[in-house]
Amino acid sequence: MKDLHDLSLKARNSFYQLSSSPAEQRNRSLACLCDVLRKNADRIFDANREDYALAEKSGLAAPLLGRLRFGPEKLKQVCDGLHALAQLPDPIGETTLSTEITEGLTLYRVVCPIGVIGVIFESRPDALIQIASLCVKSGNSVLLKGGSEALRTNQILCACVREALWLTDLPEDSVQLLETREDVASMLKEDRLIDLIIPRGSNAFVRYIMDNSRIPVLGHADGVCHVYIDASADPRTAVKVTVDSKTQNLSVCNAAETLLVHRDAVDSCLRPVIDALREKGVRILGDPEVVRLAGCDAADESDWSKEYLDAVISVRIVPSLDEAISHINRYGSHHTDCIITEDADAASRFMNIVDSAGVYWNASTRFADGFVYGFGAEVGISTGKIHARGPMGLDGLTTCKFKLIGKGHTIAEMKDGTRKYTHRSLNGACPF
Amino acid sequence: MKDLHDLSLKARNSFYQLSSSPAEQRNRSLACLCDVLRKNADRIFDANREDYALAEKSGLAAPLLGRLRFGPEKLKQVCDGLHALAQLPDPIGETTLSTEITEGLTLYRVVCPIGVIGVIFESRPDALIQIASLCVKSGNSVLLKGGSEALRTNQILCACVREALWLTDLPEDSVQLLETREDVASMLKEDRLIDLIIPRGSNAFVRYIMDNSRIPVLGHADGVCHVYIDASADPRTAVKVTVDSKTQNLSVCNAAETLLVHRDAVDSCLRPVIDALREKGVRILGDPEVVRLAGCDAADESDWSKEYLDAVISVRIVPSLDEAISHINRYGSHHTDCIITEDADAASRFMNIVDSAGVYWNASTRFADGFVYGFGAEVGISTGKIHARGPMGLDGLTTCKFKLIGKGHTIAEMKDGTRKYTHRSLNGACPF
Repeated sequence: MKDLHDLSLKARNSFYQLSSSPAEQRNRSLACLCDVLRKNADRIFDANREDYALAEKSGLAAPLLGRLRFGPEKLKQVCDGLHALAQLPDPIGETTLSTEITEGLTLYRVVCPIGVIGVIFESRPDALIQIASLCVKSGNSVLLKGGSEALRTNQILCACVREALWLTDLPEDSVQLLETREDVASMLKEDRLIDLIIPRGSNAFVRYIMDNSRIPVLGHADGVCHVYIDASADPRTAVKVTVDSKTQNLSVCNAAETLLVHRDAVDSCLRPVIDALREKGVRILGDPEVVRLAGCDAADESDWSKEYLDAVISVRIVPSLDEAISHINRYGSHHTDCIITEDADAASRFMNIVDSAGVYWNASTRFADGFVYGFGAEVGISTGKIHARGPMGLDGLTTCKFKLIGKGHTIAEMKDGTRKYTHRSLNGACPF
Repeated sequence: MKDLHDLSLKARNSFYQLSSSPAEQRNRSLACLCDVLRKNADRIFDANREDYALAEKSGLAAPLLGRLRFGPEKLKQVCDGLHALAQLPDPIGETTLSTEITEGLTLYRVVCPIGVIGVIFESRPDALIQIASLCVKSGNSVLLKGGSEALRTNQILCACVREALWLTDLPEDSVQLLETREDVASMLKEDRLIDLIIPRGSNAFVRYIMDNSRIPVLGHADGVCHVYIDASADPRTAVKVTVDSKTQNLSVCNAAETLLVHRDAVDSCLRPVIDALREKGVRILGDPEVVRLAGCDAADESDWSKEYLDAVISVRIVPSLDEAISHINRYGSHHTDCIITEDADAASRFMNIVDSAGVYWNASTRFADGFVYGFGAEVGISTGKIHARGPMGLDGLTTCKFKLIGKGHTIAEMKDGTRKYTHRSLNGACPF
């Protein structure tokens, strides 16, 4: 068991150095990481084979086993990702507000890194490099806890990240690896040293984190996503998007779990959509009318808020667009929801009133992803609304600070009328 | 005791209507509120006199009694504030990102209101109007709990806000008044209906809220603010800014609590600053060297993190700029900290590495305020870094959603190469 207080303190002290380093140096560190990874390729592959063999022996499910693999192909992907990330503009330092408060007193709001972030992620070891590199690029320190089945791989990958930091004169202690559940429990207590926890995992796990820490938590995991087929849907689009949303990958948070169909679209769309889903092996659970029309099993009340992550979909017929919106806001998880329609007014109303991170018009819910959005990668997908929403890339890893620059200005002078508030909007970037 | 579940549900359902209303209608509601307040002026003043008499009888401290008053002067201020707020640009609807993902598929990130917000504030009843109007302007529903000593005043003020909403065809249930501590305790349980809690109050109170709710909490209250007098400080500026930061108002969170002085500024600045503070009746607690030089009492370790909110200041001599920065990052509360210097490099280093919401150069810490920053008003000052930092005005009351608009796009087509990611940056605002 590691000394998490000591480790968090080192991460915090490193943050002050990392966050004030030039973008060029942070980018150089990412390029250097590619070299270090390639140099250590054999050691990484060996460690990964060891992890894999043990996981196989312990009976890890096949899809998880697949995600655990880290071979030459993954290494190439990871290095491509690092080069792409290094090319992205520096997410920190931008002046987002500048105001003359009174003569000679200027206020700037400047984007800056958050501080120390704890990220708990699943078995996929390439996630370690993605998360660590997003944090280095954005000037944040990070405590990483990966899946225990990938421990050996993660140990070497993390050592590579730290070596690349050291080789480019950045503080290696800004990236730290946690190894056990006890480490995670200890980390949750360091609310004076850690600024944010991002847990990737099941709902129950996110709840556990929230209930056991005063540190702010981002990145919820539940995805009860809907496809709503509107009265003016094009049947071909309805089939195509519904099938992709439900079946392209069954076990991911942005897969659809419920299909809503407008009463006026039943004749044109319900049958072809259900046939197409069944062809892909999807089991249908319907409301009484769907049961009658499609000869499927009945959904009960609990089905409307269930995340199946499996070849099952619940289907309901709704009398109106507004009823569809109400259903989604009531039963959904505010992740990603889609309307299929040719009617721009209906689409606009749906996208404005559905209270979800992603509101899609004629596009598969599966598009909810940091790479797809062009963010390079993501540290998580937030279904909360505070701070960041949807896929969290570099932007989500920043906060701001206010810099106020005066010539000995006092509030007393403002109160007694010696000086007057001007609140003039300026355009300049903060020069300091 | 109110039925907080029912009340929160009403606020949530009203949110969907309020958030999709045009800016012009929300502004009209603010103007209408002025008329309603003026029409009900006598009832408001009567209720306030009743609150005041009871508070006086119960022995409320004089400064709090002063803040409780709501007379013609306050009404004028409140109406001026409402008119100014109505003039500010609409904080919602702005497109902050637009990207072509692939041909025919466009992603927009659009600013939108957060949802339902619970705000717990102090005795000052004009705060009710400020907070409610910021929420109406930004399209959020709000549950308000003011100080119990202002209950009668708050009841009428809240009724006026609801009448103004009703008169302008907006949902009156988007603004709700809580009346008891039991109401607050019940509110904290509604984590499926409420998106954010903003408690204004003592540290202990904020902790209580955090420990008793899964709802995200913003707006911490502690203000251990520092003034640091650098080696190259101008002594006149040092005196002026330190005196204002410490004494202009002793009981507020942006008042200074600790003074740090660079060893090389001791000769030029320490004596005049301490003399000026003593002249204002401030008691000095110093480190051993300050004790010797100024003949004051000794500060102990706990003084460095104490928020006196009183005529007391702790003073320490530091050997370097970096030592001052370390002291502030270690003992401070990340609220607002100031450097006095004529050296731009020192100021820049201080402002970049001090990890606080406000980092000031030659200006009083007392400037940390939503009105001063030009935000109209504030719902609170966040010393956290997640979501909002510093004074929270309209900006802090928004989040975003991603709107994705396609023509039946599927991830399957992206994976099989039928379509390619373009990730082309667009400049257009989202038309839907």
